[in-house]
Amino acid sequence: MEEIKSLIASIQPLNYKAMATTLKRLDDLTKPVGSLGGLEKMACQLAGIRGTFPPALPRKALVLMAADHGVTAEGVAASPPAVTEQMIYNFIGGGAAINVLSRHANADLIVVDVGVKCDFPPDLPIMHCKIRRGTDNMRQKAAMSRTDAIAAIKVGITMVETLASQGYAVIGLGEMGIGNTTASSAIASVLTGKPVSEVVGKGGGIPSERVSHKVQVVEEAIAHNKPNPQDAIDVLAKVGGLEIAAMAGVVLAAAANRIMLVIDGFISSSAVLAAYKLSNRIKPYLLATHLSEEPGHQAILDIVGLTPFLQLNMCLGEGTGGVLGMTVLDAAVKILHEMATFEEAKVFPVKSNL
Amino acid sequence: MEEIKSLIASIQPLNYKAMATTLKRLDDLTKPVGSLGGLEKMACQLAGIRGTFPPALPRKALVLMAADHGVTAEGVAASPPAVTEQMIYNFIGGGAAINVLSRHANADLIVVDVGVKCDFPPDLPIMHCKIRRGTDNMRQKAAMSRTDAIAAIKVGITMVETLASQGYAVIGLGEMGIGNTTASSAIASVLTGKPVSEVVGKGGGIPSERVSHKVQVVEEAIAHNKPNPQDAIDVLAKVGGLEIAAMAGVVLAAAANRIMLVIDGFISSSAVLAAYKLSNRIKPYLLATHLSEEPGHQAILDIVGLTPFLQLNMCLGEGTGGVLGMTVLDAAVKILHEMATFEEAKVFPVKSNL
Repeated sequence: MEEIKSLIASIQPLNYKAMATTLKRLDDLTKPVGSLGGLEKMACQLAGIRGTFPPALPRKALVLMAADHGVTAEGVAASPPAVTEQMIYNFIGGGAAINVLSRHANADLIVVDVGVKCDFPPDLPIMHCKIRRGTDNMRQKAAMSRTDAIAAIKVGITMVETLASQGYAVIGLGEMGIGNTTASSAIASVLTGKPVSEVVGKGGGIPSERVSHKVQVVEEAIAHNKPNPQDAIDVLAKVGGLEIAAMAGVVLAAAANRIMLVIDGFISSSAVLAAYKLSNRIKPYLLATHLSEEPGHQAILDIVGLTPFLQLNMCLGEGTGGVLGMTVLDAAVKILHEMATFEEAKVFPVKSNL
Repeated sequence: MEEIKSLIASIQPLNYKAMATTLKRLDDLTKPVGSLGGLEKMACQLAGIRGTFPPALPRKALVLMAADHGVTAEGVAASPPAVTEQMIYNFIGGGAAINVLSRHANADLIVVDVGVKCDFPPDLPIMHCKIRRGTDNMRQKAAMSRTDAIAAIKVGITMVETLASQGYAVIGLGEMGIGNTTASSAIASVLTGKPVSEVVGKGGGIPSERVSHKVQVVEEAIAHNKPNPQDAIDVLAKVGGLEIAAMAGVVLAAAANRIMLVIDGFISSSAVLAAYKLSNRIKPYLLATHLSEEPGHQAILDIVGLTPFLQLNMCLGEGTGGVLGMTVLDAAVKILHEMATFEEAKVFPVKSNL
């Protein structure tokens, strides 16, 4: 825990000088001032995070944390728990949605086993960081111990420190874990204060009539474990998941290492919310991308104060919305590098709005 | 006009068989059914437009129509009219926003002079299709004759027919023309029935206090010319612009040639609205991308019944939002080509929602 506290203490504000220089450059480019809206904000944010002008076209990674959930015993998920393991092999084979979209976004996909309920061959090309074989059933007991939750957070931290040393400037959150929208709903309800029924959705595709059962399971898990809303690690341990705790570690370490953290949908946002409750200093390092169909997503974004820019009614997870957002971020950086100024292009507007 | 009528008559519905095959494939891929939301819709739409499964990764063009506007004499624009010409040279030099973003999207940029108020050297690498040197001041008289409007529409049609023969499957609308948000506002007001004050914005960046003057100019232009809302070509001629009419021609010809038409912001949408009033058969061929900061944009999208998926508070024009949207479209097509099915990946979900 001391390691996490000192990591948080090391998070710095953005470099405002780099941001001001970036904004000045953007205002000189051959376009009406501010007319690239969100692209200009992203370019300034990345400059402030990296502390340089112009920020380089970023090296990008999608860190996909995988783990299983004991609460699947309650029939809350659309797919059987074995699908978590099967999907890991799909990721390695390159055939999952996140493979396709990571390649499209030129982001390196890094799959991390934090707690899948099986033994993977040691030579499987994933990061082997298993803390335990899935969580316990949170309807009956704490999903995991506080010690395990902290260990999972540290997996995320270590991963980011490695990527930082390799020059990655942008990291996206991804996840795989049958049952994890149930855990995310519990985290979202406890940490936003919203009723469980407002943050539970269909997850991986349960029928509408099973949603009320999922609500009941989450309500009982919270009632039984009594997670402390003032203690995000307690919440992650009692009603969270190993991959969610690991993602929270990624968020904290990204901010501490001046890396832009790209959020995906509901599950990754529940990890961001936990990290935000540990320290709101992470906020300037966050990039919200898409708005998920899961009803709890907006509630989390409202608390953290983030506005996504893609509205594609997606709810796949894995990091898919995040990597789509990275393609827009790259466009923003290219604007800084490749557009001509009015002077360079010999364009002479009357800057009447200056 | 007969040519335009016969072009419209040739517009076919989408190929529903190709769409059904695409949807079936999407449902077999290793993800919850429908979880890629808008990406899945785009993939189906492109399959229906091209009439093939799977549709190939599309060859893409951004057709940028350029022209000047006599109404700039009324002080409605932020920049002097000479900026239209200057920006053409910026496009050729590769330094404008649309150059950067087209390269990012792997879309070929084609710049077309439909009515810029200058003489370009004949060897300048643009399409030389000038109908006249800008429009007249619509506050005092019709912006152009009906004959000129039809000639401009035909420029758009011819351009698309050439691109269709070269194998382009996706065309984005782009434009350059100082003063053209004023013309678009007039078109939007007449064809949506909304008051002028609700569809006029800051355009290229006029100060707030000049917006009311712009409203007055548009109101007077409409009052003086009395464009017939039942006759979109009359509206394009009297209060439109040469590049807007040309874009309307691009829309009609894209639909007739089974090409997906990618919309940008307010100005391109005013051309889409005019084309839609000529024939609502174009609608299945349209892809809305971003929502502009210009207040009239939403009003047009509501009439045509389109929902954009990028919310970046952009208002630059040139086609910039459209090409950003093309990068998302490419992702949708890659999903079809590159994702594994459950069977291929040996993933065994219980498809409880089927």
